[in-house]
Amino acid sequence: MINGERSIERPLRWGMVGGGRTGQVGYKHRTGAQRDGTYRLVCGAFDLDAERGRDFGTKIGVAADRCYGDFKELIAKEAGREDGVEVVSIATPNFTHYEITKACLEAGLHVICEKPLFFTVAECEEVARLAEEKGLIVGVTYGFTGHPLVHQMAAMVKKGMLGDIRIVDMQYTHGFNAGDDVGAGEAVKWRTNPKTAGPTFVLGDIGTHLYYLSEVVLPHIKIEKLLCDRKAFIPTRAPLEDHATVLMHYDNGARGRLWVSSVNAGNMGSQRYRFVGSKASIEWSDSHPDQLIYEVQGEPNRTLHHGMPYLEEESLACDRMGALHTEGLGDSWANIYLWIAQSIDAKRRGDEAFLRDHHYPGIQAGTEGVRWLENCVRSADAGSAWVEFN
Amino acid sequence: MINGERSIERPLRWGMVGGGRTGQVGYKHRTGAQRDGTYRLVCGAFDLDAERGRDFGTKIGVAADRCYGDFKELIAKEAGREDGVEVVSIATPNFTHYEITKACLEAGLHVICEKPLFFTVAECEEVARLAEEKGLIVGVTYGFTGHPLVHQMAAMVKKGMLGDIRIVDMQYTHGFNAGDDVGAGEAVKWRTNPKTAGPTFVLGDIGTHLYYLSEVVLPHIKIEKLLCDRKAFIPTRAPLEDHATVLMHYDNGARGRLWVSSVNAGNMGSQRYRFVGSKASIEWSDSHPDQLIYEVQGEPNRTLHHGMPYLEEESLACDRMGALHTEGLGDSWANIYLWIAQSIDAKRRGDEAFLRDHHYPGIQAGTEGVRWLENCVRSADAGSAWVEFN
Amino acid sequence: MINGERSIERPLRWGMVGGGRTGQVGYKHRTGAQRDGTYRLVCGAFDLDAERGRDFGTKIGVAADRCYGDFKELIAKEAGREDGVEVVSIATPNFTHYEITKACLEAGLHVICEKPLFFTVAECEEVARLAEEKGLIVGVTYGFTGHPLVHQMAAMVKKGMLGDIRIVDMQYTHGFNAGDDVGAGEAVKWRTNPKTAGPTFVLGDIGTHLYYLSEVVLPHIKIEKLLCDRKAFIPTRAPLEDHATVLMHYDNGARGRLWVSSVNAGNMGSQRYRFVGSKASIEWSDSHPDQLIYEVQGEPNRTLHHGMPYLEEESLACDRMGALHTEGLGDSWANIYLWIAQSIDAKRRGDEAFLRDHHYPGIQAGTEGVRWLENCVRSADAGSAWVEFN
Amino acid sequence: MINGERSIERPLRWGMVGGGRTGQVGYKHRTGAQRDGTYRLVCGAFDLDAERGRDFGTKIGVAADRCYGDFKELIAKEAGREDGVEVVSIATPNFTHYEITKACLEAGLHVICEKPLFFTVAECEEVARLAEEKGLIVGVTYGFTGHPLVHQMAAMVKKGMLGDIRIVDMQYTHGFNAGDDVGAGEAVKWRTNPKTAGPTFVLGDIGTHLYYLSEVVLPHIKIEKLLCDRKAFIPTRAPLEDHATVLMHYDNGARGRLWVSSVNAGNMGSQRYRFVGSKASIEWSDSHPDQLIYEVQGEPNRTLHHGMPYLEEESLACDRMGALHTEGLGDSWANIYLWIAQSIDAKRRGDEAFLRDHHYPGIQAGTEGVRWLENCVRSADAGSAWVEFN
Repeated sequence: MINGERSIERPLRWGMVGGGRTGQVGYKHRTGAQRDGTYRLVCGAFDLDAERGRDFGTKIGVAADRCYGDFKELIAKEAGREDGVEVVSIATPNFTHYEITKACLEAGLHVICEKPLFFTVAECEEVARLAEEKGLIVGVTYGFTGHPLVHQMAAMVKKGMLGDIRIVDMQYTHGFNAGDDVGAGEAVKWRTNPKTAGPTFVLGDIGTHLYYLSEVVLPHIKIEKLLCDRKAFIPTRAPLEDHATVLMHYDNGARGRLWVSSVNAGNMGSQRYRFVGSKASIEWSDSHPDQLIYEVQGEPNRTLHHGMPYLEEESLACDRMGALHTEGLGDSWANIYLWIAQSIDAKRRGDEAFLRDHHYPGIQAGTEGVRWLENCVRSADAGSAWVEFN
Repeated sequence: MINGERSIERPLRWGMVGGGRTGQVGYKHRTGAQRDGTYRLVCGAFDLDAERGRDFGTKIGVAADRCYGDFKELIAKEAGREDGVEVVSIATPNFTHYEITKACLEAGLHVICEKPLFFTVAECEEVARLAEEKGLIVGVTYGFTGHPLVHQMAAMVKKGMLGDIRIVDMQYTHGFNAGDDVGAGEAVKWRTNPKTAGPTFVLGDIGTHLYYLSEVVLPHIKIEKLLCDRKAFIPTRAPLEDHATVLMHYDNGARGRLWVSSVNAGNMGSQRYRFVGSKASIEWSDSHPDQLIYEVQGEPNRTLHHGMPYLEEESLACDRMGALHTEGLGDSWANIYLWIAQSIDAKRRGDEAFLRDHHYPGIQAGTEGVRWLENCVRSADAGSAWVEFN
Repeated sequence: MINGERSIERPLRWGMVGGGRTGQVGYKHRTGAQRDGTYRLVCGAFDLDAERGRDFGTKIGVAADRCYGDFKELIAKEAGREDGVEVVSIATPNFTHYEITKACLEAGLHVICEKPLFFTVAECEEVARLAEEKGLIVGVTYGFTGHPLVHQMAAMVKKGMLGDIRIVDMQYTHGFNAGDDVGAGEAVKWRTNPKTAGPTFVLGDIGTHLYYLSEVVLPHIKIEKLLCDRKAFIPTRAPLEDHATVLMHYDNGARGRLWVSSVNAGNMGSQRYRFVGSKASIEWSDSHPDQLIYEVQGEPNRTLHHGMPYLEEESLACDRMGALHTEGLGDSWANIYLWIAQSIDAKRRGDEAFLRDHHYPGIQAGTEGVRWLENCVRSADAGSAWVEFN
Repeated sequence: MINGERSIERPLRWGMVGGGRTGQVGYKHRTGAQRDGTYRLVCGAFDLDAERGRDFGTKIGVAADRCYGDFKELIAKEAGREDGVEVVSIATPNFTHYEITKACLEAGLHVICEKPLFFTVAECEEVARLAEEKGLIVGVTYGFTGHPLVHQMAAMVKKGMLGDIRIVDMQYTHGFNAGDDVGAGEAVKWRTNPKTAGPTFVLGDIGTHLYYLSEVVLPHIKIEKLLCDRKAFIPTRAPLEDHATVLMHYDNGARGRLWVSSVNAGNMGSQRYRFVGSKASIEWSDSHPDQLIYEVQGEPNRTLHHGMPYLEEESLACDRMGALHTEGLGDSWANIYLWIAQSIDAKRRGDEAFLRDHHYPGIQAGTEGVRWLENCVRSADAGSAWVEFN
């Protein structure tokens, strides 16, 4: 159980690009990072509007002279300081991720980037090579995978409690875009424009969370082919999609289906995962993250609760609140940020053995997410046809 | 609200083929039929084992001399009686439906048959012509569609409360066949053998329930093309499937997805339906049939309860227990049987006006179910490819 | 599992007093009785309005000349028939139960009566003596206790799976009387008038269901003292109550709390029971009667589903629909009526051994319900004080 | 919505007494305090074992020389520093609260104390006078009342959406003490010993949470009399209780019932609140804190979700994650700590107008909790009799 004791040598000097007052996700980054003594926020380029960004930055405790106008200024000025920033989080629209990440890495800074990471696998691989050369970490904020019961699921699969995996059923849907985008805010506008969002809307925005979580739980099976059927129910969003179904065939014979939508009117259930094996099934939703359904055919259905001694140690190790007390999305983000910090710390110390065994959403995870999106788009563009996964 | 008062001229003289002591479904037929004074069980060929069938028949109140050895004897002997049977229910394995139905119709008897109706659309259409010629009714026991809240859903769609239908999401899964079939009983054996089950296992056995219910709720939209991906996780079941996903494109642009499985280990949720429109969504499960979720984007989610005055009259009209008191599957079957009885009664009286407006699962519904199965199989056989629905 | 085969010698000739077109509960009696070949409805005095009663009776299949104007006529005329009625169900307002029951017993007829049985324990004991003398059965329609999982609970307690019982928590609440009674219908009016309802409103109307079910599940512990705090939130209902809380101390040291209310605005949960033992707890609600929660401290919580092979035989023996298929209140009533029929059949056959072991809600159960009400009223009248249970 | 911007002049210099490595609650204090730039942890006496406390303190970022052996040393040493601590949180067993709080106040330090505050109302009133004299704040960590939907409930009641309050039903139960205490840890031992826990176990440990939350939601009604029935199912805990039921009569005629237990075997539901009015009811549980049930008699039941625009501004103002994203107990604590910080800040600035309107759990709330406990014990000691609330 995590009690806030620092698990790395010293706090990391941390900065943010984006995530200012008008952003949706900045607070999640900060509330995730600023626990456990692992990060100290020292600088930021929080806003396209430099003045507003400075005002905001000082309100969250950053010195005014380290609130910069843009990421370029941040990199340049911080490079000149002895106590300069070491790791930068990127919480900006998708189309800027690649450029900012590269610039940070070139400047010797670790990066923590929003998903979907970049527009293409080629970009991901280029950046992975750059990070490798520079000896730097690139973390990706798949923020839901820090929940303790996600790791309970992974441990149960690993122990064979489900038997052979047969069916993967995943869903992340909501209805916040059920209406048209007339009068929509910036956060909707950039997400539905291919120039700023990349080749997908909901597949990238929410579908990559599903895909990554399935990789965490089922690392041992791989997609062989998939089919993606996507559609924009609000026509102005085309060619991007506000609804998509993806079918997947895995290399062990398992079958997958995945649904993403932002036009599922009224739906507040968020994500739902069901992993079915030959012996048993497990089911989890981030909307009630503290409980996990475990169903063995022919036995009473079971509900497992976070923090209970009967759970696997992988789950208990990342529990923060303890049984009976609810964990929220902020706690999950805190774990993600912690695991990335431990990677950066190990990298700094040259501890490659630690890194080999250490789980965190890194450049590889980010790349796989983009690869999955590329395959989805390729299938959709071919008339929602089956494509070999590559 | 239904209180058991007979709504037809006089009770129908009713017989059964199959549905004896070892069958799974016979009791549902009887508990459905024997309310409301609409059917009086007068004869049966309940069992392949004539002696056991006679013993059983007398235990459910049938005279011993009207417990027959098989359907041929039943038809022949009853034809000779002044008070002979008028309508016969067929609760036997799929492969016998066609022959028995034809024989009954030829003998001037109305038929109530289990689903899936027959093996091919051609058979269905032939039988439909025969029934038409003979002036007889063929009812199909889609037993879940008698639930009052199913008709609440249909009424809400009809009134436009959902707006344009965008997404149809349906699931009927369980795990009772998660293990292999070594030592399985007769009910499993005939269902997994193409000779006795026809061209499908779970698609026909449970998927047709989903499809018919969606037709009841959404009569105004039609499938244009579909894709079916099916698999037998227990190889001995091949070429039949124990798992299938079907994607559907509707003529109004809506997208559908449907999942059937009997290897969803531990799953006791049975059926789940979600119909998403541009304004709102509704969601219902037969496992808690007394409540209906109604979700308008941007408003609190609502739960509607059966029997409440705020429901549409179509729903209240078929309520049997009243609010707070649970309705079960038997009540749904009772409604199905009642609606079929009213059709038979109208047919007898020559009341074609009544029949035009009267809802019940008839030969057309049975045919559409088989047509849907044919399209699914055609898609699956083509490598899970999209096929035009025809 | 029950499949409708008759388990008694021959169907009983059955009549009803009350339960006509305007009654709330008549259909539940009929749908409960007319399965399994146990009862044949031959006569009735269905309505205070004799003409309406006759019209109704013929619509549910009773011969016109056996639809009587009142219970006295019914008793008198049927006594003159060779095929006269044998057992009469009483579905009339509370204040008539005693007189009608006595008259039927005097005439040699078995009785099935609504709850609360009579107004006083003295009346119950008098009638019990009369029934004993006459060799007749008096059944009481505690209609919720036929659900299969109620008997699962009883079996689990009996096997010691809960350990020592510590806490009994019961609730039956709804909000249908949250508003005042201006313009209320007959069914409300007689229930809130002490002359017609007796000494209680919700305690008798719904609380007796809770109390009887707890006796079925926990036959081995008895109340030693109780405290009842009751109130009429709608003042015109006083001295009767629309809300009450009862605290109970049991002879084994267990503590009980019970809540009944008809002013719990918006509440559709109906009944909820939780029985807590030193080892485990069980929880059940009639609003989702097909599932039972079973919780062992320190283990994952379990949900048991009706009809599954892992259940105790006492539960499976009274299952009608089978796993996955919902049982409703009608199925529960069918079991109650069946068990009473088996008692009557045994009484007729003089099979006292059968009767000793046979569970059904009889005169003793009805008496205990009235006794509990008397104790509640005595406590309430004493200023909601603790009273010894006697 | 809260996004982490500091809402007070400057961060408060904060220290802790207790809450070290072996404590259950220390992390909740720290994760609650260390957001929003409101508190900076500068010192602590974290542990009875000074060495372990220092090791722990440095791991959570406190300078080694400000990790003290006990609260006396902390107060003495910090008093000598220009940058000395301003506010101290007390996360130690109940029996120490009074002494430490007084010592802090005497030293001019604000206090944030665990509940139940002290053993007696007299102590509370003495400390309230002291705090008043010194111009200092005493906050009490009723940690569940920071959830946004708690304030939605309060706002709905205030607007009259429930009508007149009729019924208050509250429950906080779990089963973690269902077994005996042989081999129990320190956290159980001190809680079941009157010397260290005070006059109650579960009433104080968890019941005070229920009572305070009800005061937040229903500030306008007051208890007139109550009855408390308590029991130790594990005899070694007597005279303290592991189970209690409290009945309450309010001055507006409302009726309340409250249940606390730590022997409710297997129960993971934690807290449940239902407030019933003449028009509608609301229901909330901290185990799924992001949803609120709202039920108007005769209308579909509604589920409200945190962060949605249809909520009252009082609720949205303290939302941290936004709709669809789960809030956890840590977020609730963060709000509590924020509100206390705002009080301290206002006190420092002499802004009494702000303090008059500002909601936070202060000395008055702590006193009322202890007063309620005193009344409960008085009733229980009188044989579970009704007592006037005073």
